[in-house]
Amino acid sequence: MNVSRGGQPFLVAAWSAAHLEAVEQALSRWVVAQAPAGLGDSMRYAVLDGGKRLRPLLVLAACEAVHGNTAASMRAACAVELIHAYSLVHDDMPCMDNDVLRRGKATVHVKFGQAQALLAGDALQALAFELLTPEPDEVPAAIQASLCRLLARAAGHEGMAGGQAIDLASIGQALDEDQLRQMHRLKTGALLQCSVLMGAACGSLDARASAALAVYGAAVGLAFQVVDDILDVTADSQTLGKTAGKDAQQDKPTYVSVLGLERSRDYAGELLVQARDALACSGLAETRALLALAEMVVNRHN
Amino acid sequence: MNVSRGGQPFLVAAWSAAHLEAVEQALSRWVVAQAPAGLGDSMRYAVLDGGKRLRPLLVLAACEAVHGNTAASMRAACAVELIHAYSLVHDDMPCMDNDVLRRGKATVHVKFGQAQALLAGDALQALAFELLTPEPDEVPAAIQASLCRLLARAAGHEGMAGGQAIDLASIGQALDEDQLRQMHRLKTGALLQCSVLMGAACGSLDARASAALAVYGAAVGLAFQVVDDILDVTADSQTLGKTAGKDAQQDKPTYVSVLGLERSRDYAGELLVQARDALACSGLAETRALLALAEMVVNRHN
Repeated sequence: MNVSRGGQPFLVAAWSAAHLEAVEQALSRWVVAQAPAGLGDSMRYAVLDGGKRLRPLLVLAACEAVHGNTAASMRAACAVELIHAYSLVHDDMPCMDNDVLRRGKATVHVKFGQAQALLAGDALQALAFELLTPEPDEVPAAIQASLCRLLARAAGHEGMAGGQAIDLASIGQALDEDQLRQMHRLKTGALLQCSVLMGAACGSLDARASAALAVYGAAVGLAFQVVDDILDVTADSQTLGKTAGKDAQQDKPTYVSVLGLERSRDYAGELLVQARDALACSGLAETRALLALAEMVVNRHN
Repeated sequence: MNVSRGGQPFLVAAWSAAHLEAVEQALSRWVVAQAPAGLGDSMRYAVLDGGKRLRPLLVLAACEAVHGNTAASMRAACAVELIHAYSLVHDDMPCMDNDVLRRGKATVHVKFGQAQALLAGDALQALAFELLTPEPDEVPAAIQASLCRLLARAAGHEGMAGGQAIDLASIGQALDEDQLRQMHRLKTGALLQCSVLMGAACGSLDARASAALAVYGAAVGLAFQVVDDILDVTADSQTLGKTAGKDAQQDKPTYVSVLGLERSRDYAGELLVQARDALACSGLAETRALLALAEMVVNRHN
C-alpha cells in the first residue's frame, strides 16, 4: 500500500517493517529472562514472538507526526504493548475466558501454570511503568510523568480493567448499541487511543492537533473492536491465531450480534472515514503512517 | 510510647492516629465506588477498613524527615498501599495461596468471585500509578517521575512479583538463610524499603541521608518478615486477622523453620538495632516517627 501526498511516496510496508523490528528488539532487551524463578521465561513467552504490535506502531506514528522524542516513544511503544500483553494473559485464565490458544500458541497458564501466569501478568504491568521511568537524563521527567498519567488511566478502572468488568457482567445480557460502544471504548478503545496520545505526548502539539488525534484514536480504537467482532464469526482459528467463534459460544454481545454483519462492516467503514477526517483537520504535516494504520485496522484479516 | 529528644516529647500514638485517619480518608476518596460493573465495590473492599497501613506511615514519616512535599507524600502513601492491597488479593486466590480469610474478613475472591478479584487487583495496580501522576500543578513532574520509578521497580520482577515467584518455587524446598533473605528482600522488603525511599523522594536529601534511609528501609523490611514468620507460629488466626499456621501447613520455608524461634527473635532485635543506627547516622533532624515505626514493626502482635 502506497500513500503519496506531494513529496516522496510513503511506503507503508517498509515503514511498518522497520518499526516492527525496532519494537521487537526493544521488547526482547527490556523483558529480561533473568527475572527470578522462571518469571522471566513466562513474561517473555507472553510478550515475544507474536502479536500485530498495533499499539506500538500507533505510538511511534503519532510521535513522528509531532516530531517527538524518539527515546521516549520507543519506551512508550513497548510499555503499552506490555499492558496489552498482561491483559491477554489474565483474560485467558480459567476464571476469565478460559482460553487455551493465543497468537497460535498455548496460553501462558496452559504452558506455565495459573500461579505463574497471574504473577507474569502482574509483573508485566509493573514493567510497563518501569520502562516509562528511566533516569531523567534519558527522557525528560515531564514526558515520563505525562506518559505514566496517560497509561495508568487507560489501563485502570476508567479504562481497560473497567471495560473488562463490564464485559464480565454482560455475558448473557442483551446490550444495546450504546452500551456495547461504552464497553468497548473502555475495554479495547482506551488503550488504543492512549497509544496515539502517548506518542503525541512525546512531543508538543497545539490544541487543534491534540483534539484531532484524540478523535482519530477513539475512531481507530472502536473500529478495531468492530472488526474483531466481525472476524470472530468470519475467520477460522488458524487465521486468527486464537479460538474463533468464542463470542457466540460464550453468549457475549458483539457488534455482529447487535447490528448484524453488514451493518457492522458499514460501521467499520464509517469509523475509518472519521479517523481520516480527523487527521485531515489536525494541521499536522506528517500523518501518512497514522492513516495507513487506520486502514490496516479496518482492512485486516486477523 | 514516647520518644523525647531534647525538645517537645514525641507522642507516637497521636502521630500515628492523625496520619492513619488522613490515609483512610484519602484512600476512601481515591478508590471510588463508581468504577463500572461492581469493580469499584471489590476494589474498595480490598483496600478499605483494614490493614496496619505500615507502608503509608513509612512514606509519611520519611517525607517529614526530609521536609518534603506533603501533597506528593499522601499520594505516594496511598499508592504503595494499593500495590500492597492488590498483591494480597492476587496472593489469596485459589491458584496461589488459596486463602479465605484476610484482615478478619472473607478474601476478595470469596466475596466477589475469582474473575472480579483478578480484575480488582489489576485495576488497583493501575490506580497506584494514577495516584502518583496528577496534573503537574499539583505535584512537580520530577517528583511524579521519581515516585513512579521507585514504585514500578519495587512492585515488579526485581521486587515484589519476583519475590512471589521465588516463594512459589520454594514450596517444599529447603532454603538456607541467604536464600530465604533474598526471597523476603524481594517479596516483602522491596515494597517496605520503597515506602521509605518514596517518602524521601518527596523532598531533597544528601547522599549520606539517602544511604542511611535505604539501610533503614531494608532493615525494617526484613524485620517485618522475620516477625511475620514468628507470629505465624505464635499467634492465633483471630489476633492475626488471617489464617495462622499457614506456612508450616503449606511447607513453606520461614525464618522460624530455618533459624528456630529464639534465633528468629534475636535476629528481629538485631535488625531493629541496624535501623536505629542508620537513623542516628543519617544527619536528619526529625527521625522520631521513623524510629517509632521500626519499633512497632518488631514489637507488634499482629
